[in-house]
Amino acid sequence: MAATDPLKPPSPHRPLTLRDRLHIVIDGTDTKAGRTFDAILIVMIVLSVLVIMLDSVRAWHTMYAEAFEVIEWGFTILFTIEYLLRLYSMPNRWRYATSFFGIVDLLSILPGYLSLFIPNAQNLLIVRILRILRIFRILKLTRYLEQANFLLVAIKSSRQKIIVFFTFILTLVTISGALLYVVEGHENGFTSIPKSIYWAIVTFATVGYGDMTPKTPAGQFIASVVILLGYTVLAVPTGILSSELTRAHNDIEQAIECPHCGKFGHANDAKYCDGCGGRLNV
Amino acid sequence: MAATDPLKPPSPHRPLTLRDRLHIVIDGTDTKAGRTFDAILIVMIVLSVLVIMLDSVRAWHTMYAEAFEVIEWGFTILFTIEYLLRLYSMPNRWRYATSFFGIVDLLSILPGYLSLFIPNAQNLLIVRILRILRIFRILKLTRYLEQANFLLVAIKSSRQKIIVFFTFILTLVTISGALLYVVEGHENGFTSIPKSIYWAIVTFATVGYGDMTPKTPAGQFIASVVILLGYTVLAVPTGILSSELTRAHNDIEQAIECPHCGKFGHANDAKYCDGCGGRLNV
Amino acid sequence: MAATDPLKPPSPHRPLTLRDRLHIVIDGTDTKAGRTFDAILIVMIVLSVLVIMLDSVRAWHTMYAEAFEVIEWGFTILFTIEYLLRLYSMPNRWRYATSFFGIVDLLSILPGYLSLFIPNAQNLLIVRILRILRIFRILKLTRYLEQANFLLVAIKSSRQKIIVFFTFILTLVTISGALLYVVEGHENGFTSIPKSIYWAIVTFATVGYGDMTPKTPAGQFIASVVILLGYTVLAVPTGILSSELTRAHNDIEQAIECPHCGKFGHANDAKYCDGCGGRLNV
Amino acid sequence: MAATDPLKPPSPHRPLTLRDRLHIVIDGTDTKAGRTFDAILIVMIVLSVLVIMLDSVRAWHTMYAEAFEVIEWGFTILFTIEYLLRLYSMPNRWRYATSFFGIVDLLSILPGYLSLFIPNAQNLLIVRILRILRIFRILKLTRYLEQANFLLVAIKSSRQKIIVFFTFILTLVTISGALLYVVEGHENGFTSIPKSIYWAIVTFATVGYGDMTPKTPAGQFIASVVILLGYTVLAVPTGILSSELTRAHNDIEQAIECPHCGKFGHANDAKYCDGCGGRLNV
Repeated sequence: MAATDPLKPPSPHRPLTLRDRLHIVIDGTDTKAGRTFDAILIVMIVLSVLVIMLDSVRAWHTMYAEAFEVIEWGFTILFTIEYLLRLYSMPNRWRYATSFFGIVDLLSILPGYLSLFIPNAQNLLIVRILRILRIFRILKLTRYLEQANFLLVAIKSSRQKIIVFFTFILTLVTISGALLYVVEGHENGFTSIPKSIYWAIVTFATVGYGDMTPKTPAGQFIASVVILLGYTVLAVPTGILSSELTRAHNDIEQAIECPHCGKFGHANDAKYCDGCGGRLNV
Repeated sequence: MAATDPLKPPSPHRPLTLRDRLHIVIDGTDTKAGRTFDAILIVMIVLSVLVIMLDSVRAWHTMYAEAFEVIEWGFTILFTIEYLLRLYSMPNRWRYATSFFGIVDLLSILPGYLSLFIPNAQNLLIVRILRILRIFRILKLTRYLEQANFLLVAIKSSRQKIIVFFTFILTLVTISGALLYVVEGHENGFTSIPKSIYWAIVTFATVGYGDMTPKTPAGQFIASVVILLGYTVLAVPTGILSSELTRAHNDIEQAIECPHCGKFGHANDAKYCDGCGGRLNV
Repeated sequence: MAATDPLKPPSPHRPLTLRDRLHIVIDGTDTKAGRTFDAILIVMIVLSVLVIMLDSVRAWHTMYAEAFEVIEWGFTILFTIEYLLRLYSMPNRWRYATSFFGIVDLLSILPGYLSLFIPNAQNLLIVRILRILRIFRILKLTRYLEQANFLLVAIKSSRQKIIVFFTFILTLVTISGALLYVVEGHENGFTSIPKSIYWAIVTFATVGYGDMTPKTPAGQFIASVVILLGYTVLAVPTGILSSELTRAHNDIEQAIECPHCGKFGHANDAKYCDGCGGRLNV
Repeated sequence: MAATDPLKPPSPHRPLTLRDRLHIVIDGTDTKAGRTFDAILIVMIVLSVLVIMLDSVRAWHTMYAEAFEVIEWGFTILFTIEYLLRLYSMPNRWRYATSFFGIVDLLSILPGYLSLFIPNAQNLLIVRILRILRIFRILKLTRYLEQANFLLVAIKSSRQKIIVFFTFILTLVTISGALLYVVEGHENGFTSIPKSIYWAIVTFATVGYGDMTPKTPAGQFIASVVILLGYTVLAVPTGILSSELTRAHNDIEQAIECPHCGKFGHANDAKYCDGCGGRLNV
């Protein structure tokens, strides 16, 4: 079977097969049918996730258990048909099946069938909630992709700083946790270092549940210092990202291309290319 | 009846009617009477909202219920008169009545009259608190508008990024919620997926009420990862907005072009081009 | 008596009086004596505030009540002498006595004397903690002033945006509070609109004590929406300030002065003054 | 004994001694052996810290106390050998022994030996968790150093602002704490000023445990004002750092000057001046 991608301009000599047409509708956004398919799919994904959510509410489950099961099977069968069609129409089937979204598509339907053979598969059925990830495939195909890429570039270019920052945070959290474990001890809820680290993370991120709090004056003093320290430190990731985003923006804005050497990206007021010295057409 | 707007320079041949004068006082800020009207209105709005608030305090309600009712009826009647005058004096009455602020004006007085016919209309009376929105109409007419516009532009220009970000957040929150629903379960307060999503939102936004907290070690570990992940992710909207605001500022400042050398980008108060020394047309 | 400020270059004919010398030591930082005086004063202020704090701890109060009282009277007498000397040596006594720091100086010592006449003046004595504000007078005289000014400029130049933002926040908080008051009601702790607004502020600022939390599914849903909305909205002040700070920095950096018209502040790459068109010495 | 650093190009006449070779492996990253040594050390540090953590969980301690002790002694002996080799191979032994990392290295092994002589040295053993700090020595030697430096420069250049900011925060926190101590009093948990300051810090940093909350209407009103004030104020450090980071970036990028026209500020990868087209000396 040919692995030609029908989304690319087809050879003029080959007529579109059913498989090509399916691929254009299911994976493309250039035709009206393709866009309609995407819109219906988004609605179905959202509805099926809502059904899973509502089914988890005990009161609703006891009242509408059967109705929910019928609806869920409807979605499972529809998503199965979609999965099979997608698999059939893909130019490269194996790559699709092993891709991130291919696995998500499979995980969206598999738990339903497995629950027929495994009793009490409640937790297994929760896996179906990963269906919500399928929305990103559709977003990926639209103009929103550009924005997501933009964010990814900003995050990637500050990757090294984020690693240093996280090593620092984990160290800070480990030492603060150990400190409060010693100062507060078992009787005040700090029953182990891992649990004290959980407290430190909850505190550093300013979540502050209050399920574990220092009770002794010494513990409260250390916690105060840790909080003030953490507050200052945690201004860093925002600062980094903010700074990266501003720069990424500027880079895009200054996207003047040199007509001589093709270099992309010059300052706003540049008159000559800084890559080859040729005059720019501004 | 004429729909000419008296705020625009009137035809020299037409004398100002009572309706015109009312419109100038009620909707304009150019005359002393207009500004006085606005100041009185702001004070009355704030006072009437304070009365609604205080009336909701049980101790005060039992003591001063009658006094509050008299005062409230006073405000309702005054706002009704204002509403009718506004409706009368507007060049385009229907557009006003169906505008955002027209509806807010109506909602500020309607519940009072409806409560005469509907018994136990306590919740209905709360609608009157929307009166507070009327302050923005008056702010809208002043120099503060410019600043609000500035913020709106910054928010609008990062709209796409905010949509991508919110889809991502809702996905993250749904999956984290479902995960903790499975790990913690009914006995630890995670009684349904929607409730677990409420927990995840409260956690991600670093509010951390502590009404629902993970109790099992596995749950605490997952929560820690979720919190650290969430903390990094949530630096994004601040970063985006901050970057947009910086750019919006720069764009406004540097929008002046030199007519002699074509240099783009001068300070707000520049009179001469800083690239060639030629005079700018400001 | 002359009101000449001895900190300014004195007339060569007038010898320095005792009053002048006192003023130079107490209010100046140019002499070694002046700097030593400031250092001693800072240590005394910090110590006296620490004594007030420790005295409020019940266990310490019962044990060391007398010692604390003696120490406190020592500080009160020392600060009284300092106040009188400052008042005596100031070029303009009335302006000092009615200035912010003059009143703070008085409030630091007055409660001690008043407590001799008023029984059970515990709360009055707390006023002495305002002594901590006196540290800023000393900081004001040092190079740190520049930094504080820098921040004040940034805050001032975003003043209008902050007012718009606060009006918006108060409106949002009032409406959210009223909404949860209706949905949750007295039985879930939302006993009045003011108390519900307190909840909304605690939630919006992501403090989230957890003393009041929505219990009904509807309340939890509304709270989730309010939190997500609030989170996005509250990115604004950080963004504004961050942007203002960046700009304030740039303004300082670009502080090139024109030799022809004296205009301050040009772009980094400016060759001609944008105020008069004259050539800059860069 | 020679204090020549073998990491610097050695004199051609001197052969590498065993001590030199050890120094290259233990402290250098240029050889394969050096990098392997670092990788093994990081794994061992992480594992030994994990063992300390797990040993603090009571259930695990009762089950595997002996196994943990054996493993821990293994790590202690290995780290002791490493410490002695490091001390032996260092060009300047005394400087190493008294350096930050030298002391951390000693603290990582000392508690183990001390626990042989001191009974019930549980808290002493916690000191071993400082081993986690040793990871930074290894990070220091890699390319991550550059990033850490970058952050340090940004933090240092905003040091003055941070001091002013912290003095302000501590003042605000002291006064707010004292205020709530007076308003709420002992019966609502605000038992002393230090404890009330702990509450104020927890609130200002938006952690909000909820272990101490205002109960009286007056206290809740003051807390609301304090929270709103704190929220605005705390936007400052983020803003400062963000602004410093952006500038630090720009400074690094734009530090190249054109030798032909003197234009300052070119992109990192520029080969030609974008103002005159002349070749840059890069």
